[in-house]
Amino acid sequence: MPGSSFGTCFRITTFGESHGDALGVIVDGVTPGIPIRKEDIQQHLDQRKPGQSAVTTQRKESDTVHILSGVFQGTSTGTPIAMVIYSKDMEPGAYDPIKDLYRPGHADFTYEKKYGIRDFRGSGRASGRETAARVAAGSIARILLEREGVSVVAYTLRAGNIACRSIDERVIEKNPLRAADLEAAAEMEKVVEKLAEKGESCGGIVECRVRGVPAGIGEPVFDKLDALLAHAVLSIGSVKGIEFGAGFGAADMTGSEHNDWMDESGFLSNNAGGIIGGISTGQDIVFRVAVKPTSSISVPQKTIDTSGEARNIRTQGRHDPCICPRIVPVVEAMACIVVVDLFKYQEALRS
Amino acid sequence: MPGSSFGTCFRITTFGESHGDALGVIVDGVTPGIPIRKEDIQQHLDQRKPGQSAVTTQRKESDTVHILSGVFQGTSTGTPIAMVIYSKDMEPGAYDPIKDLYRPGHADFTYEKKYGIRDFRGSGRASGRETAARVAAGSIARILLEREGVSVVAYTLRAGNIACRSIDERVIEKNPLRAADLEAAAEMEKVVEKLAEKGESCGGIVECRVRGVPAGIGEPVFDKLDALLAHAVLSIGSVKGIEFGAGFGAADMTGSEHNDWMDESGFLSNNAGGIIGGISTGQDIVFRVAVKPTSSISVPQKTIDTSGEARNIRTQGRHDPCICPRIVPVVEAMACIVVVDLFKYQEALRS
Amino acid sequence: MPGSSFGTCFRITTFGESHGDALGVIVDGVTPGIPIRKEDIQQHLDQRKPGQSAVTTQRKESDTVHILSGVFQGTSTGTPIAMVIYSKDMEPGAYDPIKDLYRPGHADFTYEKKYGIRDFRGSGRASGRETAARVAAGSIARILLEREGVSVVAYTLRAGNIACRSIDERVIEKNPLRAADLEAAAEMEKVVEKLAEKGESCGGIVECRVRGVPAGIGEPVFDKLDALLAHAVLSIGSVKGIEFGAGFGAADMTGSEHNDWMDESGFLSNNAGGIIGGISTGQDIVFRVAVKPTSSISVPQKTIDTSGEARNIRTQGRHDPCICPRIVPVVEAMACIVVVDLFKYQEALRS
Amino acid sequence: MPGSSFGTCFRITTFGESHGDALGVIVDGVTPGIPIRKEDIQQHLDQRKPGQSAVTTQRKESDTVHILSGVFQGTSTGTPIAMVIYSKDMEPGAYDPIKDLYRPGHADFTYEKKYGIRDFRGSGRASGRETAARVAAGSIARILLEREGVSVVAYTLRAGNIACRSIDERVIEKNPLRAADLEAAAEMEKVVEKLAEKGESCGGIVECRVRGVPAGIGEPVFDKLDALLAHAVLSIGSVKGIEFGAGFGAADMTGSEHNDWMDESGFLSNNAGGIIGGISTGQDIVFRVAVKPTSSISVPQKTIDTSGEARNIRTQGRHDPCICPRIVPVVEAMACIVVVDLFKYQEALRS
Repeated sequence: MPGSSFGTCFRITTFGESHGDALGVIVDGVTPGIPIRKEDIQQHLDQRKPGQSAVTTQRKESDTVHILSGVFQGTSTGTPIAMVIYSKDMEPGAYDPIKDLYRPGHADFTYEKKYGIRDFRGSGRASGRETAARVAAGSIARILLEREGVSVVAYTLRAGNIACRSIDERVIEKNPLRAADLEAAAEMEKVVEKLAEKGESCGGIVECRVRGVPAGIGEPVFDKLDALLAHAVLSIGSVKGIEFGAGFGAADMTGSEHNDWMDESGFLSNNAGGIIGGISTGQDIVFRVAVKPTSSISVPQKTIDTSGEARNIRTQGRHDPCICPRIVPVVEAMACIVVVDLFKYQEALRS
Repeated sequence: MPGSSFGTCFRITTFGESHGDALGVIVDGVTPGIPIRKEDIQQHLDQRKPGQSAVTTQRKESDTVHILSGVFQGTSTGTPIAMVIYSKDMEPGAYDPIKDLYRPGHADFTYEKKYGIRDFRGSGRASGRETAARVAAGSIARILLEREGVSVVAYTLRAGNIACRSIDERVIEKNPLRAADLEAAAEMEKVVEKLAEKGESCGGIVECRVRGVPAGIGEPVFDKLDALLAHAVLSIGSVKGIEFGAGFGAADMTGSEHNDWMDESGFLSNNAGGIIGGISTGQDIVFRVAVKPTSSISVPQKTIDTSGEARNIRTQGRHDPCICPRIVPVVEAMACIVVVDLFKYQEALRS
Repeated sequence: MPGSSFGTCFRITTFGESHGDALGVIVDGVTPGIPIRKEDIQQHLDQRKPGQSAVTTQRKESDTVHILSGVFQGTSTGTPIAMVIYSKDMEPGAYDPIKDLYRPGHADFTYEKKYGIRDFRGSGRASGRETAARVAAGSIARILLEREGVSVVAYTLRAGNIACRSIDERVIEKNPLRAADLEAAAEMEKVVEKLAEKGESCGGIVECRVRGVPAGIGEPVFDKLDALLAHAVLSIGSVKGIEFGAGFGAADMTGSEHNDWMDESGFLSNNAGGIIGGISTGQDIVFRVAVKPTSSISVPQKTIDTSGEARNIRTQGRHDPCICPRIVPVVEAMACIVVVDLFKYQEALRS
Repeated sequence: MPGSSFGTCFRITTFGESHGDALGVIVDGVTPGIPIRKEDIQQHLDQRKPGQSAVTTQRKESDTVHILSGVFQGTSTGTPIAMVIYSKDMEPGAYDPIKDLYRPGHADFTYEKKYGIRDFRGSGRASGRETAARVAAGSIARILLEREGVSVVAYTLRAGNIACRSIDERVIEKNPLRAADLEAAAEMEKVVEKLAEKGESCGGIVECRVRGVPAGIGEPVFDKLDALLAHAVLSIGSVKGIEFGAGFGAADMTGSEHNDWMDESGFLSNNAGGIIGGISTGQDIVFRVAVKPTSSISVPQKTIDTSGEARNIRTQGRHDPCICPRIVPVVEAMACIVVVDLFKYQEALRS
């Protein structure tokens, strides 16, 4: 349970604080004999890194991945792949002004209650920077899944009260919001920039679609495919909810509306989101993720200091007015990790 | 990963199909020296059992629990507590008419794809009856939590398009929907009965509130308190989504609206649902669960048989027109199991 | 870690005290579609059961197995197989004389220190009777292994200072010691009977041989094949040591004596016991297990009572003067469980 | 099961090949608020490092540890501690002569069978160098144990057919064999040097003693203290056996000889090695480990190449004629890791 590992047959273990020397991940259970190129990993890390546009933080971090083990002559050996991202440009005193304050929406208070001690440099282990390790691990999982014909894509479905009105996955990488609708993206961008000017932030919804998973993946009872995806996705900071297929909308449907009927051609609808009884149906797996507004804002807020006294706080620095576009690759990474683990276990079960 | 176990320091392992000889659970990691009375377990099982009212199935099942181990002279010994519920009234031929059909909304199709074989008697392992084992295990977890001053309560918040307009926990056990608002409950009941007459079903939303958890419970990164609750709750059949605190509503809020400010008296709001950075804040933990309409309905539906041919199906038998009131004790049970596990791990971490 | 589960892809979870209502096991991860006959399980339980000869206890226990789940129409469904053995002939007051005494060599003292409470009826959870659940689970593992061409056989190699002088596996079931040498077995029998008359017991060595495991099974580093076998076998009560291949003899060898050379025909020796670097070589896997003399003896012994006062104790009742023949099926069972788990994981890794 | 993690409440995950860029470990579950000094870790690594004397390899490796996370201002934060040791002085072509040969006693053959691919540079993941990560992790465990009054010490008990005739722990670090008897150590040294001159190696026995563990540590059934120690120790390369207390000697004892009697002063003997029923008795925990002779020798040996053809091999390079003194700190490290994990779990169980 020390919560830095995830997965059974394909298991990742991460480490690192936002302002420590490095963060990284050990990926264990990688199929041997698979070509692993550093560029494939770096490409996904670059999607997550800050400083990409006006809607994300202007901080510059290179997030360059180093592979320390498990790859020999460009090929996975089957032994654990360790990847490390070293930190740069530490300004040691930068966090001193807030080291005695609990920033609203941040885990400062809860970490101190849990551990009795807190690494106050930039959220420490609770920093969003921790997700870089997930993205690196997810890119290994993705390489394995692609060999099975599985693809995973996520995008911003809603941000700043603006929703995509259509879904065109080809435009996701063509707008700073990573929205699936260029027109809506332009509107979102305006809203987010206006909020950013005021020192504010907004939340949104990210949708993820997994294609190519055959029917039969997922374990009944506690390790249902949707249960593991929920675990994986809710473990990402800023995520406050998840729903599959019709999701919360199912609450207001009748049985005959919600049940996905079949005929010789297969399923006639996908209200279940591609998962029934915790097991894939062979249809697309579809889920949506609620993302809260970034906690770091520069408007004045009420809080207390570590001695319990009331204080006003105004966080400085470069933050993401909307975290959705940077959560997109993290959601994809976690989905890849869950699916490849269940694929591998299915082989174990049937053999 | 064979998915029949859940938990780390407090671990449950279940078995059993709906129409097998028995179903049950082994609960390992129970604190020794705690009084365990069979009646405390039975009381929660009775909440889950069918045949309680017109809005749930009319099947009669006694669901009597037998404790086979781990309790000596009325007290837990620290060794695994095994509990079994034997099945009764098997009508062996009852499921023959559907044994070659995949019932819409049910896991018949996915189980067969997964295993290449299916126990077609009443959904087998995918039956809602499996949750009796969770409720039995959860009642042990609840006994441990009560000693820490933690209470867990869930109720139907919405069903058949009717929402509770106020929350009064004292009325939950006084209406067949287990709703928290008697007036709304009466309306829900009418809607559900009308749907039942037509052979239809409806979904709903169940809300759960955990009180008394001190700040500091939950593990960072992958075993966040909300991530484990999501895993636990999404592993319950018929659940299609979960949200914490403001949940999906957070998507449309700004940072200053969503951040929970503090002053000397503590937190001034609870949009986070009592969890920040995956760790409890000391406030109430609040989450909501999307429940799909029961799949078993008696209106004619399109499906295929095991040879892939199109067929019409009309499920007979006594089913739940709305499963929410029977999911309530299961949600509570899973929440208890997660929280006690994290409490125990916190002791391990700090020692 | 609550220690009642073992295995990853093929996982068993046991419960039960010697004088509780029942003991049993849940076996999760069983390949679906495999014929499972109750008789195959019962046959191995009968090997373990007491009352087989003068060298084992004269207690009569039928140890009849009941399969509660996971098998449908004689075939595994892939869902957990729960097996229960109900207890009979409880004499509730039989253990009263020793309930305040710590029997030498027994876990009475350590359990009470651990839990602060003790089920004093016949060793409770620490009873050898617990191994019945392992044997039942092992027989399922064995059925899976036989399909892969793997066989597992153990036998008494030494008992009461008498060693087998040759190994003939065909005679194992033809002598009450389960020794692999009929002549030596006859001598062992005499020694053991003489000890039994004096109320004494003796220890021995059990050897196990696993045939048919292809090269490549076992995980490097922490889950080496020999490490998991050691874990599995040392978890059996009364076992005080394990050695592989040349074992402790290797301590006095040189590198050129110990290294197993190869030529075109394969390995020229097997000092490694079929495992190098934690991975099977394709040769027979061979290990030996040190078994301590049964703790229950009727000669007078010194001990203390629960208040710490010195006392004399003379255990009554029917006990095993030499436990080796009854440990043989347990060692086989644990070996089967480890090997099938690693087989399954190898499929996961390579896929 | 991908075998690079070990432990439940205190969990380590390692990575790295002998000639990769680095090897290291993530230690999760460390108590927060504990002073962690790099020097305490380095001191144990220096015990393991090569080049210490004529009886160990003359290779020079600095094995300098870098702490990348989990320690802030000299104190553990409760988040994972990642430690890395970078490799130096790689001679890339050095292993070319043997890259198509399976070195006798090495894991070359089994790794290739397992993975279908092999990192042939200096044994890759199967190298003894992997144990540096264990020693680093073990030193963290040791710091935690010292606060509980637990100490762990191991020493060479036998090497090159010479046994210690008395045990004096003060001399262990005063002789290159790490033997507990200076006189015997001098004899061992002569034997080992003579073997080294001939290009040969020898095995030995390492004994380990854990003091200060109170009664009650260890989980019944599968996670017995001795079972976990056996798992941990057998997972060290070159180890071929383990025995506790009287160990294999117990096979030839009677019950009254072996049972450890008690009086008001406590136990009167320790044949059990401080563990009964898998749980600590409060006495010293004592076990012995069989170490095989180092596989790397420079006498000519028979083997095959990767195409299956017979070949002669004569390994060059600087190797350990007796690995015992370098295994001593690794055995201690693994013992520390097991014991601290069980201590932590005991807190979870009782809370």
